[in-house]
Amino acid sequence: MPFAVTILGNNSAIPSHERFPTAQVVTYEDELFLIDCGEGTQMQLARYKIRRNKIYHIFISHLHGDHYFGLIGLINSFNLLQRTEPLHLYAPAELESIIWRQLECAATILHFPLHFHPLQVSGFQLIADLPHLRISCFPTKHRILCFGFLFEEKPRHRKVIPEKAREAGVPLSFYKNLQQGEDYVSATGHIIPNDELTLPPPQPRKYAYCADTLYDEGLIPYIAGCDLVYHETTYLQQDLHRAIERFHSTTLQAATLARKALQDKGKLLIGHFSSRYERLEDFENECRSIFPETYLALQGATYFVGTPWKARM
Amino acid sequence: MPFAVTILGNNSAIPSHERFPTAQVVTYEDELFLIDCGEGTQMQLARYKIRRNKIYHIFISHLHGDHYFGLIGLINSFNLLQRTEPLHLYAPAELESIIWRQLECAATILHFPLHFHPLQVSGFQLIADLPHLRISCFPTKHRILCFGFLFEEKPRHRKVIPEKAREAGVPLSFYKNLQQGEDYVSATGHIIPNDELTLPPPQPRKYAYCADTLYDEGLIPYIAGCDLVYHETTYLQQDLHRAIERFHSTTLQAATLARKALQDKGKLLIGHFSSRYERLEDFENECRSIFPETYLALQGATYFVGTPWKARM
Repeated sequence: MPFAVTILGNNSAIPSHERFPTAQVVTYEDELFLIDCGEGTQMQLARYKIRRNKIYHIFISHLHGDHYFGLIGLINSFNLLQRTEPLHLYAPAELESIIWRQLECAATILHFPLHFHPLQVSGFQLIADLPHLRISCFPTKHRILCFGFLFEEKPRHRKVIPEKAREAGVPLSFYKNLQQGEDYVSATGHIIPNDELTLPPPQPRKYAYCADTLYDEGLIPYIAGCDLVYHETTYLQQDLHRAIERFHSTTLQAATLARKALQDKGKLLIGHFSSRYERLEDFENECRSIFPETYLALQGATYFVGTPWKARM
Repeated sequence: MPFAVTILGNNSAIPSHERFPTAQVVTYEDELFLIDCGEGTQMQLARYKIRRNKIYHIFISHLHGDHYFGLIGLINSFNLLQRTEPLHLYAPAELESIIWRQLECAATILHFPLHFHPLQVSGFQLIADLPHLRISCFPTKHRILCFGFLFEEKPRHRKVIPEKAREAGVPLSFYKNLQQGEDYVSATGHIIPNDELTLPPPQPRKYAYCADTLYDEGLIPYIAGCDLVYHETTYLQQDLHRAIERFHSTTLQAATLARKALQDKGKLLIGHFSSRYERLEDFENECRSIFPETYLALQGATYFVGTPWKARM
């Protein structure tokens, strides 16, 4: 069950230094989830050969352009490519009319159902309950209404130990029951406890995306226990005053929050870099002074959620 | 007085094969004019090192996304880059509310004046009367309201022949009058005709941008006598049925129109290629069978208006 995050854009505000504005794809098994969709996202999807027709859910954190100006183009391309499968869009309510207005001006009729789910201002809330994942949103502290997203894997099944099951004479038809934790009762009435026949499932994995935000310890309950947390670091620590003025975070702030929320477990992924910096090494270095397991969100790179940890370019 | 066109994007509808959707920059002297602004235009401006702060006028032909989805991002970036100079936007009327709605949702206050000039449905009309250029729009035949643009250089001054003027004792202070065609009357009352002291100005140059359109001989009066005409060729001739169905043109149609409008003078620039074609050579070859002076609009290339003709990559 691969569970991973691929970065399409890692810049803030103005695209620069070949860095695109924010967009990332969460992969779970064979399904893709797009988080934010800055201008050029559809070009980045093509560049990194990501199958856009596997995207059924798009999450937009807030209505600053560097997080959604690429959305209307992507929707338009889905339509031109004859998409028929539904698309679920989770975003601040105002986005709905912006999209429909643009489609209307182009006399475009969508050939696929577009389901709009307005995000509500009411703390932590479940927004998508899918077979293997629960996806929730939570508020962040930004200049305008802004949301983070939490992707939680649902508990998986226990794993049958085949040699033990065979030895105990368990029929194949009962394996599903074993996976769900049932004990096995043999034809002679002998009870074999489930934990002699199966291994416990792996710990469910969690990924949190903290969109644009001031340093906010209010996020800790939402992201605690995550295997991977994305937190913006628009600025290096020397530019703290800019971060505060613009409702953004610095390296040390993101790392401090990660330290408090994740303690010794989990990894921190940082992005949304300001155009004022061409080189990114200092972002990683500054964060690692507080939270060693920090990684730069690099365009085209994939970061796995949970162990085994690896990043793939 | 350089007068040239630089291509930023030459693809239709869906960006593909590394080709961006439509956008081009007209340069006249030191001023830049942007025609259409597909998604990613601001990235292309950066890639080709075009000084975006020299753009004071933007022309949007119609409200299909591949011609304007990059505009809101560019306006937003102008603002973030502290632009204070005015921007004139010429476009179908509905675009105005789309832009303001998006700025409003982001709580963005523009620091520069944005002057919106709605394009009217009323044949050929002058939309910008500038010191050296007259810019007009004209209707094309597309699925939705769509405009082409004509850039006409104003007549330039006559050129003083310095040795003749010196010989005749014309004071430097009178050179401006000579440029404007006045004869020179010497202190002794002797009249020296202007054409003995000056050369005629070069023929004013003209560039026409025919946006998305069906084959339409109604365009001929607008584009006749141009030095350079851009005409879309979304399809090769074999796909004529698609062109008609989607209100676009083929290679042979664009070349036929150029032949009729330009006769033996002028050049044809072709673009807006469908994503179904990866290679573009056939576009040029097919057009040249009817109108030899046809050139592909290639991204990053600059095409000069009028002689001396040259294209620069």
